[in-house]
Amino acid sequence: MGALNNLFLKMTVAYDGSCYHGFQRQPNGMTVQQKLEEGLAELTGDCVNIAGAARTDAGVHALGQVVSFQLRTSIPVDRMVPALQGKLPCDIVVRDAVEVDEAFHARFSSVGKTYFYRVLNREIADPLRRNYACHIRRELDLHPMQEALDMLVGEHDFGAFQAAGGSARSPVRRLDLAHCKRMDNEIRFVFKGNGFLYHMVRNIVGTVMSVGSREKTLKEFQKIFLDRDRTKAGNTAPAQGLCLQEVFYDQRQYDQACS
Amino acid sequence: MGALNNLFLKMTVAYDGSCYHGFQRQPNGMTVQQKLEEGLAELTGDCVNIAGAARTDAGVHALGQVVSFQLRTSIPVDRMVPALQGKLPCDIVVRDAVEVDEAFHARFSSVGKTYFYRVLNREIADPLRRNYACHIRRELDLHPMQEALDMLVGEHDFGAFQAAGGSARSPVRRLDLAHCKRMDNEIRFVFKGNGFLYHMVRNIVGTVMSVGSREKTLKEFQKIFLDRDRTKAGNTAPAQGLCLQEVFYDQRQYDQACS
Repeated sequence: MGALNNLFLKMTVAYDGSCYHGFQRQPNGMTVQQKLEEGLAELTGDCVNIAGAARTDAGVHALGQVVSFQLRTSIPVDRMVPALQGKLPCDIVVRDAVEVDEAFHARFSSVGKTYFYRVLNREIADPLRRNYACHIRRELDLHPMQEALDMLVGEHDFGAFQAAGGSARSPVRRLDLAHCKRMDNEIRFVFKGNGFLYHMVRNIVGTVMSVGSREKTLKEFQKIFLDRDRTKAGNTAPAQGLCLQEVFYDQRQYDQACS
Repeated sequence: MGALNNLFLKMTVAYDGSCYHGFQRQPNGMTVQQKLEEGLAELTGDCVNIAGAARTDAGVHALGQVVSFQLRTSIPVDRMVPALQGKLPCDIVVRDAVEVDEAFHARFSSVGKTYFYRVLNREIADPLRRNYACHIRRELDLHPMQEALDMLVGEHDFGAFQAAGGSARSPVRRLDLAHCKRMDNEIRFVFKGNGFLYHMVRNIVGTVMSVGSREKTLKEFQKIFLDRDRTKAGNTAPAQGLCLQEVFYDQRQYDQACS
């Protein structure tokens, strides 16, 4: 064993959220945060408190969640990924670990994030995608859906799409990309923004799909958005279609992403 | 309740094989066949023995498995799919049900099948695909792999790729398509043939990948194939990458598929 070092680490983590009660530690039910903290404790003996960039809900996935934490360990940083992976279940994968400045915080240092949302849009369910896409049987017209999404780009009060229980002080966020496209029998939404309110992506997707199925007109959609009237928005789209793709800490990388 | 009818049915079924001990009923462990038979029994009270077109292994998936069976029921055929789906877990999906001639048998009436096999070919694992693709870190060169696959097309003795325990009387099969291509970070194999020996696709994929990673030369691959020497072939590729895509009962539809 080498000397104990006090490390400040940033890790990128991918996970299948199907079996977890979300990212953030909570009293009832296993979470991704708890698994990571237990894995780090088992590996190093240190009691770690990790901060996540996004508090993904139960059933929501991540390809590029970022966590930051302080760790006392003799393990060199370049051995951290395989060492920790050995302590984790196969539905959580550590992609990389780098040393960062003490001031770095996975959530507060972030300049933006990308999420995608998958919809299986056909009659028959697909058991292989049941945990990774929302299944919508009714026909969805992408043209008005994209028009609705276009209204959301820019800095706006997204209160219409904020769930009760969100802790954000201000409902103003900036969306830089809000796009949907059809790929075979799937519709894939992509969102890029400087921050997201609680359930914001799922509420946007649910309401935009009600435009695609002609339950709501574009004018009604616009009014809900401008009136910030959560009671009029559509259903919250189910968790399993949502995936946190990437978290950005460099403004230039963020600006170049998905553009 | 209407009158009881004696139906001969053909059903197309998709399933996620991750949680099952394969398709075929067995004493130890839950299988897809057992779930289907139990669902039919619960629905109709009839004790049904279904025949499957392919006996997929534990962990192997299907988008288009076909089953045939005789059923005494008052449920009309056009209500059978939603009625049975209500009795099944969400990792088994009934795609359609049609009446067939008494002589129809899911396995013996089939003229061919297509399988695909997915390989995630990159350094980092993907938790969202862990049950649906085999993860290979080493670089694979597709050019010699496709050359190896080309040798297999036609009618041949596939004994080199037959696992011990197979029940086939003859190891001669006809492969009409054997292809691999790269799609982003995945390699996707497709096989179309008139029949497949036990573990044949997984043994072919395992051995072809050892050509792609330069562990075996094309000449060595050819010798293994021609000598029908199972002991020299590569490892059996893991189950989770394999999926039964479609089963054909019409020669013209089979000839047109994937061509």
